Amino acid sequence: MGAKIGFIGLGNMGGPMAQNLLKAGHDVKGYDLVPETLSVFASHGGVVCAAAKDVVVDVDVLISMLPASSHVESLYLGEGIMSLIDASTLVIDCSTIAPASTRVVSEAAKARGIQMLDAPVSGGVGGAVSGTLTFIVGGELTALGAAKPILQDMGKNIFHAGEAGAGQVAKICNNMLLSVLMSGTAEALQLGVDNGLDPAVLSEIMRKSSGGNWALEVYNPYPGVMEGVPAGNNYEGGFLVDLMIKDLGLAMEAAQDKGASTPMGSLARNLYINHRKQGNGRLDFSSIQKVYNREDE
Amino acid sequence: MGAKIGFIGLGNMGGPMAQNLLKAGHDVKGYDLVPETLSVFASHGGVVCAAAKDVVVDVDVLISMLPASSHVESLYLGEGIMSLIDASTLVIDCSTIAPASTRVVSEAAKARGIQMLDAPVSGGVGGAVSGTLTFIVGGELTALGAAKPILQDMGKNIFHAGEAGAGQVAKICNNMLLSVLMSGTAEALQLGVDNGLDPAVLSEIMRKSSGGNWALEVYNPYPGVMEGVPAGNNYEGGFLVDLMIKDLGLAMEAAQDKGASTPMGSLARNLYINHRKQGNGRLDFSSIQKVYNREDE
Amino acid sequence: MGAKIGFIGLGNMGGPMAQNLLKAGHDVKGYDLVPETLSVFASHGGVVCAAAKDVVVDVDVLISMLPASSHVESLYLGEGIMSLIDASTLVIDCSTIAPASTRVVSEAAKARGIQMLDAPVSGGVGGAVSGTLTFIVGGELTALGAAKPILQDMGKNIFHAGEAGAGQVAKICNNMLLSVLMSGTAEALQLGVDNGLDPAVLSEIMRKSSGGNWALEVYNPYPGVMEGVPAGNNYEGGFLVDLMIKDLGLAMEAAQDKGASTPMGSLARNLYINHRKQGNGRLDFSSIQKVYNREDE
Amino acid sequence: MGAKIGFIGLGNMGGPMAQNLLKAGHDVKGYDLVPETLSVFASHGGVVCAAAKDVVVDVDVLISMLPASSHVESLYLGEGIMSLIDASTLVIDCSTIAPASTRVVSEAAKARGIQMLDAPVSGGVGGAVSGTLTFIVGGELTALGAAKPILQDMGKNIFHAGEAGAGQVAKICNNMLLSVLMSGTAEALQLGVDNGLDPAVLSEIMRKSSGGNWALEVYNPYPGVMEGVPAGNNYEGGFLVDLMIKDLGLAMEAAQDKGASTPMGSLARNLYINHRKQGNGRLDFSSIQKVYNREDE
Repeated sequence: MGAKIGFIGLGNMGGPMAQNLLKAGHDVKGYDLVPETLSVFASHGGVVCAAAKDVVVDVDVLISMLPASSHVESLYLGEGIMSLIDASTLVIDCSTIAPASTRVVSEAAKARGIQMLDAPVSGGVGGAVSGTLTFIVGGELTALGAAKPILQDMGKNIFHAGEAGAGQVAKICNNMLLSVLMSGTAEALQLGVDNGLDPAVLSEIMRKSSGGNWALEVYNPYPGVMEGVPAGNNYEGGFLVDLMIKDLGLAMEAAQDKGASTPMGSLARNLYINHRKQGNGRLDFSSIQKVYNREDE
Repeated sequence: MGAKIGFIGLGNMGGPMAQNLLKAGHDVKGYDLVPETLSVFASHGGVVCAAAKDVVVDVDVLISMLPASSHVESLYLGEGIMSLIDASTLVIDCSTIAPASTRVVSEAAKARGIQMLDAPVSGGVGGAVSGTLTFIVGGELTALGAAKPILQDMGKNIFHAGEAGAGQVAKICNNMLLSVLMSGTAEALQLGVDNGLDPAVLSEIMRKSSGGNWALEVYNPYPGVMEGVPAGNNYEGGFLVDLMIKDLGLAMEAAQDKGASTPMGSLARNLYINHRKQGNGRLDFSSIQKVYNREDE
Repeated sequence: MGAKIGFIGLGNMGGPMAQNLLKAGHDVKGYDLVPETLSVFASHGGVVCAAAKDVVVDVDVLISMLPASSHVESLYLGEGIMSLIDASTLVIDCSTIAPASTRVVSEAAKARGIQMLDAPVSGGVGGAVSGTLTFIVGGELTALGAAKPILQDMGKNIFHAGEAGAGQVAKICNNMLLSVLMSGTAEALQLGVDNGLDPAVLSEIMRKSSGGNWALEVYNPYPGVMEGVPAGNNYEGGFLVDLMIKDLGLAMEAAQDKGASTPMGSLARNLYINHRKQGNGRLDFSSIQKVYNREDE
Repeated sequence: MGAKIGFIGLGNMGGPMAQNLLKAGHDVKGYDLVPETLSVFASHGGVVCAAAKDVVVDVDVLISMLPASSHVESLYLGEGIMSLIDASTLVIDCSTIAPASTRVVSEAAKARGIQMLDAPVSGGVGGAVSGTLTFIVGGELTALGAAKPILQDMGKNIFHAGEAGAGQVAKICNNMLLSVLMSGTAEALQLGVDNGLDPAVLSEIMRKSSGGNWALEVYNPYPGVMEGVPAGNNYEGGFLVDLMIKDLGLAMEAAQDKGASTPMGSLARNLYINHRKQGNGRLDFSSIQKVYNREDE
């Protein structure tokens, strides 16, 4: 028998996540500021609420999936939602936001005796639709235990990163590293091509050698090397440059807070910003390859 | 029955490689400028020659393993060795040098009807000793076919990268990418630690996510996370910072020749140079982690 | 006849600034959280208040000089000081803080009919003591006109950068550029020295050529080239690495807010952070030269 | 009464330099591979030679102005010109080339008892035409003394950088610093504009503050701020991006030779390469501003 779930934020990510919960037999009620998302949600069997405050009451689990720190802080703290949530409700925020924001909200929850997890995801819209998201979770292990059955209806891998906020930190670190290895892979491939190598041959050599990484494994940025990746589709779809820049911004904030050194991540971020300035913000982030390809001469 | 092999350059890498050939039953004669290497070679059954010119005659295969472009050019071209080599001898240069140097020497070989391969290795001294090197080979496929049985006595993986010089290019690209992902991994790990994460937990999460790469897989730079890696041994042994800087220098030359863009590789190179300036040139290259660790405050 | 001035924040910078106002004949009352600063202030003729709220009433001009955005926001907004300030009082915040913070505070002032200027300074402790600071001012021209006689008692150059917050932005941009040209100058000097040049000769050539900049003009980072600069005194005194990193942090925030591209400034910041990690945070920022000097080999 | 001067390389730079020597009353004979340059040279009174070897004999001073290291080495060493030059002839190479090449050629000259100077210029085509070039000279002081009257007919400032090759090193260091401060200035200006500042106001503030540098003084990269600079003319004319990249390549080689650290110069070089890849190689180098300007959103 399904759980009673409230879901706030039914956009590109939250929408299909909520649908997977409905498909799994849960009772889901939800809210979003954009009316179109609500009618899609209703057409899949979701119960549409008139406001966020109606979503948060009388549920076993409350899930939020919002674009940025300000939305999450505003929802739970600014709008006073927290005071309406029952202490027995498990709160799971799947938004990717600043660890500092997560900690503020989590502490407010804790002060009211509410268990809260930060559970940012990776896997993109594709993963949300197919129910194969990865959840990187911060918070108490007992809460994670309770959340697992629900998370498994939306995703495949679930990692416990540590205490409240740790899910955000781990995701931010991973995505900073991802930006570095994607840029580095694109750069190495083009250096090889400029010096006469076949990008597919070079990709295969590096994949099996010490240059091996996720991009060479499943997400090759060089057009024509790999099937079924954005590089083969004019870099459409996938994980947008705009979103990578957002996540790198969170990494820069986390670094600044602690005086951490991030020369490689900072450079990758600026290369992505320059790339966006050329009008590529809505392309997949593997399109950084275009920066390295020769266009003149 | 073994082949007749000449081997020039019997140092840290060439020495154990020649020993593996002897162990496999080949007749090996050799030469090196450093007398100590010759006595070790002799003690394993090698025939010591008085000069390079004596090594290159009457052999089926001639192998060279030298430190830099200038040594290879000087040996084959400057000292006129090329004119002594029989057209039936297969020449394999295992040195890591500039692709441009490789091409000059290869063309001189071709002009005399000699088949030549560039076959730089990865795997370090450990791989040389255990016979598990990776060879990244440039040159004709027929020559590679003839070379394979010999290379397999010294290594495990053999990649064909393309025409003459392509072995060098592929190795250089791989090592540039390696420097980027090692720096990036160290940076991401420390950013996580500075924000309260356990480096082992974060390593595991990123390894299985889109930040996954060779360093997280088998060569974690953070002390205490992985057994049997230089990070667990004060960064001693392994692939020296000095050698990474040398390879990155070859990458910068290859980039400069073609006007290629290498912002990430250039930055990694300068981070390694700054690291060496602090006295760390003889440490393993994963010691770049030390740059990111907090030492003050 | 002097003005009635309130001064909050009597530390390394604010202390000598307040003393110059006393020297110029103004009536100055002040407050600081650190008791020692108050006794120094009193010994120069200042009237010590028991709390910030006592400083802000019955004054013509209120000046604050605080370490960071949080202090300024907390003083004017958190502690409710703003509601105690008379509409006839001119408020001048000399702190270097985030433009966004400045704007929030300025708007609160404006809402109460109070004229407020942001007037961050450059010139360091030396300039504060000698009364030769540069003020970079944001806010209304009429308010600046009223402030000028006061500012001139503490400084030499006064620039009007634009509306509220513009003083902060201009200072942040300037200091980001300063970090870039100081690092670049140090790098160019050492490249010359490594290639056999005399640093004094090279400094003079570049100073008069297209490499000319403020560092070569008055603040040469290479020891022995220029008299009376921190490079000649083991990089003691001057503008601390820690403070440069703080200002670069504000630049990064301002860039992030607007999606601006700052590859050079970001790299300079990370070089400074790495430099601090070696224990150099309390040295003058021209000590970045030490990063480039050869220490090994 | 004029000197007898031979001039090899009569292109964009060498052509007007030779004309200024003719104007000053010298007897000038010359050669260039491009016939068009010879007819222009003849029309100004120059004596056209049929080959380089005819230029170098029977002259007091021999000047060369060639595009790259390979041309200079090929002329003096490859073509055997050196053996035709009389020991009483003073040789001045005005090309901007690798210091290592300069040293090789200078040593060949010295071996034959010929005095040789490296005297690369700055000031561009404009300076060549107006006779206001800056010469940065390496070589013996006595040779420089003899060269000065000739150099003054083509330029305004003459610097002595040190021994043979030092002229090249100093020019390379200067231009690397120039690339850093131009990029940094463009970046700081755009950061200010993105945060609401007027670029002219910000330029003036930074020019008079610690961000002051040559670009802000005479070569502002932001369109509309300064009259008579390339930024006001769609970045046409001036010092081409292609040439800046060439000079930065020489800087990278000089750094690599000595293991010098050049993070800022390397990044500036890669930003310029990315800029060229967008089709901007033939624009003035201050067009790097375009990288920072917002084009989307």
